[in-house]
Amino acid sequence: MEYPSKLIEEAVTEVSKLPGIGKKTALRLVLHLIKENETRTLMLAEALTKLRTNIRFCKICFNISDETECTICRSHKRDHSIICVVEESNDVMAIENTAQYSGVYHVLGGVISPINGIGPTDLKIEQLVQRIAQHKSEIKEVILALSPTLEGDTTAFYINRKLKEMNVKVTSIARGVPVGGNLEYTDEITLGRSITARVLFD
Amino acid sequence: MEYPSKLIEEAVTEVSKLPGIGKKTALRLVLHLIKENETRTLMLAEALTKLRTNIRFCKICFNISDETECTICRSHKRDHSIICVVEESNDVMAIENTAQYSGVYHVLGGVISPINGIGPTDLKIEQLVQRIAQHKSEIKEVILALSPTLEGDTTAFYINRKLKEMNVKVTSIARGVPVGGNLEYTDEITLGRSITARVLFD
Repeated sequence: MEYPSKLIEEAVTEVSKLPGIGKKTALRLVLHLIKENETRTLMLAEALTKLRTNIRFCKICFNISDETECTICRSHKRDHSIICVVEESNDVMAIENTAQYSGVYHVLGGVISPINGIGPTDLKIEQLVQRIAQHKSEIKEVILALSPTLEGDTTAFYINRKLKEMNVKVTSIARGVPVGGNLEYTDEITLGRSITARVLFD
Repeated sequence: MEYPSKLIEEAVTEVSKLPGIGKKTALRLVLHLIKENETRTLMLAEALTKLRTNIRFCKICFNISDETECTICRSHKRDHSIICVVEESNDVMAIENTAQYSGVYHVLGGVISPINGIGPTDLKIEQLVQRIAQHKSEIKEVILALSPTLEGDTTAFYINRKLKEMNVKVTSIARGVPVGGNLEYTDEITLGRSITARVLFD
């Protein structure tokens, strides 16, 4: 498509680099910004610039943070003896939203994925091992909350092997039929797992 | 949802003000930017800032432009005796993409929509009338290429009435069954119009 202005073209190019946003959506967003008040666009641009320039990661759990240690790691209300290992910061947010977990986290920054060239050293696995080694007596449990995919399982398997020699209890989040799901439409693997991993009805 | 960082929250708030982007999508985009190289975000922010600060509108047709007159209005290859009236700049792009039109345009900047508080004076209708009045002898035809909606039809009707006294030929884009469409799934109004507005088969 030919754009009436170089500025539009540049903006569309940059916006369409975002995941899930094609040229058409990008153009729609850009034309929307033009119609709106100028301050709106400037505020958006400033928020993004500030975000990317000032964002930090917690030096303990590698979660996104405004300071060197995140609010969860700094909190005395949290149970620091349980570490929940997740892939990304949004997993932390998702688990926090459930209000079912009061321990701390460890953000890996991804999962082992040879096809995307991501090996164990690209993730914060070594940092997790060191973190546990340093506070061995305090840590009671490590929960692996990784995606139930091939990559997630591989990563969980790798971490479990690494932690085995440390004699720490390693658990995994339950896998089974999702709440509100329909047995009929649940895939066989999930249904099979939910049967083998059945729990006492109480 | 609680965000781990004020910066994230601000960025999500700004991004989710864009049309069709909710808090969840905004968060996904923001987290994507954090994972990517810093220059990517800065380039995006700069492109948006430059766009909004430097964008101009053609003083003749009100299309988006880098200069005071847009490339179409400046072109000697275009037929300046035909003006195609459209709602927005993206309609110009859409019609240009068809490569079926060689005239010039007039961008209204919207349609008359009392429900959204948009009256005739909020649009470039008066400017259109003046433009035609100034070049009356040169202008042969005004094509109304507005959306076939209630608002579009109202606007077309209003413009047609305004132009009537100027003795200029006013046409409207054809409405009918879309190419590749299925008669069975075409709504009755469109199908009805396509029958009453039937053309000679040649």
